Amino acid sequence: MLSFATHDTRRLPVRIIEVSPRDGLQHEAVFVPTARKIDLINALSHTGVAEIEAGSFVSPTAIPQLADSDEVFLAIERIPGVTYSALVPNERGLERARAAAVRKIAMFTAASNSFTRHNIKATVHESLVRFKAVIQGAKRDGMLVRGYLSTAVWCPYEGRMAPLLVLDVMLRLLDLGVDEVSLGETVGRASPADIRALLDTVMTRIDPLRLSLHVHDTYGMAIANVLTAWGDYGITAFDCSAGGLGGCPYAPGASGNVATEDVVFALKASGASVPVDEALIVDCAHQFSTLVGHAPHSRLSQIPPARIRQPALKV
Amino acid sequence: MLSFATHDTRRLPVRIIEVSPRDGLQHEAVFVPTARKIDLINALSHTGVAEIEAGSFVSPTAIPQLADSDEVFLAIERIPGVTYSALVPNERGLERARAAAVRKIAMFTAASNSFTRHNIKATVHESLVRFKAVIQGAKRDGMLVRGYLSTAVWCPYEGRMAPLLVLDVMLRLLDLGVDEVSLGETVGRASPADIRALLDTVMTRIDPLRLSLHVHDTYGMAIANVLTAWGDYGITAFDCSAGGLGGCPYAPGASGNVATEDVVFALKASGASVPVDEALIVDCAHQFSTLVGHAPHSRLSQIPPARIRQPALKV
Repeated sequence: MLSFATHDTRRLPVRIIEVSPRDGLQHEAVFVPTARKIDLINALSHTGVAEIEAGSFVSPTAIPQLADSDEVFLAIERIPGVTYSALVPNERGLERARAAAVRKIAMFTAASNSFTRHNIKATVHESLVRFKAVIQGAKRDGMLVRGYLSTAVWCPYEGRMAPLLVLDVMLRLLDLGVDEVSLGETVGRASPADIRALLDTVMTRIDPLRLSLHVHDTYGMAIANVLTAWGDYGITAFDCSAGGLGGCPYAPGASGNVATEDVVFALKASGASVPVDEALIVDCAHQFSTLVGHAPHSRLSQIPPARIRQPALKV
Repeated sequence: MLSFATHDTRRLPVRIIEVSPRDGLQHEAVFVPTARKIDLINALSHTGVAEIEAGSFVSPTAIPQLADSDEVFLAIERIPGVTYSALVPNERGLERARAAAVRKIAMFTAASNSFTRHNIKATVHESLVRFKAVIQGAKRDGMLVRGYLSTAVWCPYEGRMAPLLVLDVMLRLLDLGVDEVSLGETVGRASPADIRALLDTVMTRIDPLRLSLHVHDTYGMAIANVLTAWGDYGITAFDCSAGGLGGCPYAPGASGNVATEDVVFALKASGASVPVDEALIVDCAHQFSTLVGHAPHSRLSQIPPARIRQPALKV
């Protein structure tokens, strides 16, 4: 276990990247009206999260749920200090992002060719070729670029991924000029030991402040993984979703981004500085829940609100 | 962080103490017929768990759900290598346990006077006085005795408990002759940092093989706590409940023993030797669920059975 960066970064405020409006909503069957999306993004803006992935400029026919991202981006309130990002698959998407005054884009690849083939009809190499032109255009406009690196521990088609393979893709992303890399534990079956093996390998070659961890709670280890990444490796950015909304339809059996409220509570309880109000996140989770028609997947959403805020008071 | 025992005990098989038939069922409103309890205990006996808390000899009027424990104990199949224990509150309960051929009893206390007063109408000291006579009788018959030490990190009435206070009660239990102590994280809001503070204190004075950890998943940190206790402290016994059945009604807002299947999966994924088949536990969880009328609280119970068993195969 390396801990070379721990003494520096664990004192910094944790950055929560709230992905519910994009990654969370994109596979929900029920269309959420544009006005409700805007309301919810505005509500999330006041919870203390550092970044909100607010939409996606993929083909509207591919993901009808997010066909209104242009409108959403032009209507949301943009709070100073909060970053509003959008998924962009290609140059056409970049054009739309530019027109919607998006300042940060996210692109998608993975460690596994089988996964990218199923997901974006391209090999990992082909996906990186697509990155190149988009990143050049984005940088010209002063946009920030995030690279998603999915299946960083397990692939639903290929099984366990070698950390050195993940490192190789991460280095190629950095060479292409991405500002940060989000390592995706897509299948949600990694243990803290797996996260250690991954971070021991990749953190030799990247500033921890350019890394985010994106974990799923499918097998129940997401919170343990977040606490390990923060406590033992000084990772300070985590992708999560209010109410655990969303998951990945390309990973059979996988469901559930880790819930923002549970991540925030666990990090605070472990001594981290997290400038997010988890009770407000729970409010948002319940609002999402009403719109999409199923209950939040989180522990905190099942607790009486008066019992959520720390520290516990005597009753 | 101490790790004096880690090199020895982590190589031992983890002992799962399955509490669903007692702690899990005792506050369920729907009465589970005696024959179904017997069936489920028999099914749990073949999952690989080390111990099953199969009943309780408290007053039948206090907990009608477990009024049939005498009958249950005399009817269940007793598999060699599996221990079948029962909660015993007093000498009357001990008589009943003896008549039912129970070989291991469990008694209850806590670190917090407020909690024992609400729970068993006694101070901690008074509860320990009760232990004395019962333990003497149990030992005379060669029974093993487990002492539950609840509110070991948080009390729902008094807030955070000092580890030294927990140590004091634990030492009194050991002086009284209990064979093992189960530390209960009753409120379910402890983080791994809290578990470390507790274990750093108490493990200076007890053989790790005489300790069990009993965590609740109320705030979502139970699995992280189990992995910390095993990985960093060599704790090898964990109380848990199939499907997360049960909790503690005396801790307002608290719900959910940690689910056996999620504990087993996470420990195996972390490299522990756990001789339990988590897919069989999920089967039991679904059977309990049908009987009590609500869904299991676990991640594994939501995953297609074919995807549960490790290691993951290619699809």
